[in-house]
Amino acid sequence: MAVDATHDPARRSWVASANGHPDFPIQNLPLGVFSPPGGTPRGGVAIGDMILELGAVAPLLSGEARRAAEAAAGPALNPLLALGAGPRRALRGALSDLLAEGSAQHEAAAPHLHEAEACALHLPARIGDYTDFFAGIHHATNTGRLFRPDNPLLPNYKYVPVAYHGRASSVRPSGTGVRRPRGQRKPPSDPAPSFGPSRNLDYEMELGIWIGPGNALGEPIPIGEAAQHVAGFCLLNDWSARDIQGWEYQPLGPFLAKNFCTSISPWIVTSEALAPFRIPQPQRPEGDPAPMDYLMDATDQAEGGLDIALEVLLLTPGMREKGMRPHRLSLGNARHLYWTVAQMVAHHTVGGCNLMPGDLFGSGTVSTPGPDGFGSLLEITEGGRRPVALPSGEERRFLEDGDEVIFRARAEREGFAPIGFGECRGTVLPAQS
Amino acid sequence: MAVDATHDPARRSWVASANGHPDFPIQNLPLGVFSPPGGTPRGGVAIGDMILELGAVAPLLSGEARRAAEAAAGPALNPLLALGAGPRRALRGALSDLLAEGSAQHEAAAPHLHEAEACALHLPARIGDYTDFFAGIHHATNTGRLFRPDNPLLPNYKYVPVAYHGRASSVRPSGTGVRRPRGQRKPPSDPAPSFGPSRNLDYEMELGIWIGPGNALGEPIPIGEAAQHVAGFCLLNDWSARDIQGWEYQPLGPFLAKNFCTSISPWIVTSEALAPFRIPQPQRPEGDPAPMDYLMDATDQAEGGLDIALEVLLLTPGMREKGMRPHRLSLGNARHLYWTVAQMVAHHTVGGCNLMPGDLFGSGTVSTPGPDGFGSLLEITEGGRRPVALPSGEERRFLEDGDEVIFRARAEREGFAPIGFGECRGTVLPAQS
Repeated sequence: MAVDATHDPARRSWVASANGHPDFPIQNLPLGVFSPPGGTPRGGVAIGDMILELGAVAPLLSGEARRAAEAAAGPALNPLLALGAGPRRALRGALSDLLAEGSAQHEAAAPHLHEAEACALHLPARIGDYTDFFAGIHHATNTGRLFRPDNPLLPNYKYVPVAYHGRASSVRPSGTGVRRPRGQRKPPSDPAPSFGPSRNLDYEMELGIWIGPGNALGEPIPIGEAAQHVAGFCLLNDWSARDIQGWEYQPLGPFLAKNFCTSISPWIVTSEALAPFRIPQPQRPEGDPAPMDYLMDATDQAEGGLDIALEVLLLTPGMREKGMRPHRLSLGNARHLYWTVAQMVAHHTVGGCNLMPGDLFGSGTVSTPGPDGFGSLLEITEGGRRPVALPSGEERRFLEDGDEVIFRARAEREGFAPIGFGECRGTVLPAQS
Repeated sequence: MAVDATHDPARRSWVASANGHPDFPIQNLPLGVFSPPGGTPRGGVAIGDMILELGAVAPLLSGEARRAAEAAAGPALNPLLALGAGPRRALRGALSDLLAEGSAQHEAAAPHLHEAEACALHLPARIGDYTDFFAGIHHATNTGRLFRPDNPLLPNYKYVPVAYHGRASSVRPSGTGVRRPRGQRKPPSDPAPSFGPSRNLDYEMELGIWIGPGNALGEPIPIGEAAQHVAGFCLLNDWSARDIQGWEYQPLGPFLAKNFCTSISPWIVTSEALAPFRIPQPQRPEGDPAPMDYLMDATDQAEGGLDIALEVLLLTPGMREKGMRPHRLSLGNARHLYWTVAQMVAHHTVGGCNLMPGDLFGSGTVSTPGPDGFGSLLEITEGGRRPVALPSGEERRFLEDGDEVIFRARAEREGFAPIGFGECRGTVLPAQS
């Protein structure tokens, strides 16, 4: 993907808080939906500590960029996502110019900035379908090992970008409380299942992927065109009730263990913003099968990987009481995914399944080869057997009521301005009594 | 559920074709979305060979019925489904009166009838999420036996109404062609998977369930209230590529094997229309566990079953050439489901997952204890080992290109007018070359 003037690290914004902002400098320009105080939801772009309203500045733009900004005026960005990469790229270029120091339109744009802290952030699009992949090979190995010590990875893993359909209705933006689910659980040692609140509530650190134009039913997206259908990325917490999952998941996969809530960070960090942080897809270990033809593309192999650091933090009630800061549980990186996003798109559609603008993918839990970047408590605590010690003196096997899980992500590369994703937060609420 | 004047078998309609109609007599009044020739999609009710346009007759109605008809004026019935059972029942009563012989409004309503054959039928609602259950215990046993001869049913089956999330974007109305999917397949005897068109394409005969108002995230629907959230029923063909499924489904469930298309019959046969055909939930065999408390309700046990005959027919190119009629492959009945629809709703929401108006459930494949009513070719042919002989001299292990699968359903009970569902048809198109 092309790197252009919008990525120039020397470019500064007349929005002062953007310069040096850890997440939203002028080189990022992520898209979202917000409500200003007392106002209705509308599309915006994050710039430093502010949000610029897209519909309101559309008249300052022209051509494709204007059309894209108009498509982002409503309460969901689906119309913008449907336009595809061209108009989205034009919008990025125009917004970068508009917000850059020295812009002639500084005065005209400034009234359409809102303080982010005073705004409510919503889901950026109406999610038609949500699909969760399983592309984190170290996570798949770690969790498989808990069940099958000698043969952790199933035989299909290195051929099939394994995925399942998730629940779209319960995807929520960062900050929404997550009620501990009740359900049937049966530890292997119990003769019969019991019903009650999940005892093994966990998070899963995933990359979320927003789908752009999509395809008609019966018309697969070839892998060479797949990147054009990826609008951008977010952080995704695939909250998981391990005890419910263990009992229910055979033979048709996870259901109630996951569908009670999925949290996402509210900003779509566009594919264009991430262009400088593309890396070659890591070479497969000796002995692994080559991807099948429909999953193989030279460009994708050369730049389908993503160098994005992924951080998980935990803030417990005990830490909050003591005034402590969130504790880092792991620091991983999206480069460890076994399948590229283009491979996910090509696989999802190869049988004819249609993707729609605003569909959401989860990458699957991203874990590193070593324990510093394990993306779930299940892995960190080895299924709850080795509790993690917290600086407050507490320990955790799984999440307790009041625990807040915080995801952050950051892309950095020599010669470019680092960009971030904003946060994906969620606090565990007690189960319904 | 109450049986009232709308079910009176003596009631006749001034729409002559309705009287004695196999599917749509005045006692049925199913809801759908249609386009008249040259017109846009809008809500309607089937009456004999005609469709009455709901928005157009709203001014002839009053109160709740009028509000319901107005909610059905648009291109999707979600606003009507959101209103719930009260307004839907009022609409049914008012339409029954409007269409009955001797109605004073006969003249005013007649101009709003359209010949069904000239109209296009659409999905009746925008499907937010589609969930497929596995409540056909004989199907679960039959298919389980193919993999585990000694232990066909998994230990969770009689405790958990097992389900998985399906793909909403690829649900299509009856009559849409079904392109044979391509994908990865690996027969157990092959050392590695290969890629190509599915060789084991199958249908699955299911009951579809349309969800009415639904619930907020985190607020389960108690089983005693579940029936109020079921707007009605349709027929559902969960097309399945068995060879793709066998290779991909572990550990997260079916994905490409099912998401290439799901066909449904276009009419919502309402819960009210089916009230006379409610039966007690069949008693569980001696030794089966009792349903857990959250799945147990006396009213549901007394009338949660459904006596609906389910027929599968096949029309092959060879039969078509010879001018033969479709051949019946099976005749089953919805009474053989192990879980009631109310149990499905209560289970789906017990962990907090929210249902939305227009969500769709599949019941899971309905099979009888004996082979006459097996709901898939996988069961009829024992995994393809015993081909089924057709009257054309052809035989089938699985579906071939050009085969048309036709589902029909019929509810009959002494003292009531029989009603039907209309058809769910789909013809297999060759795989993309």
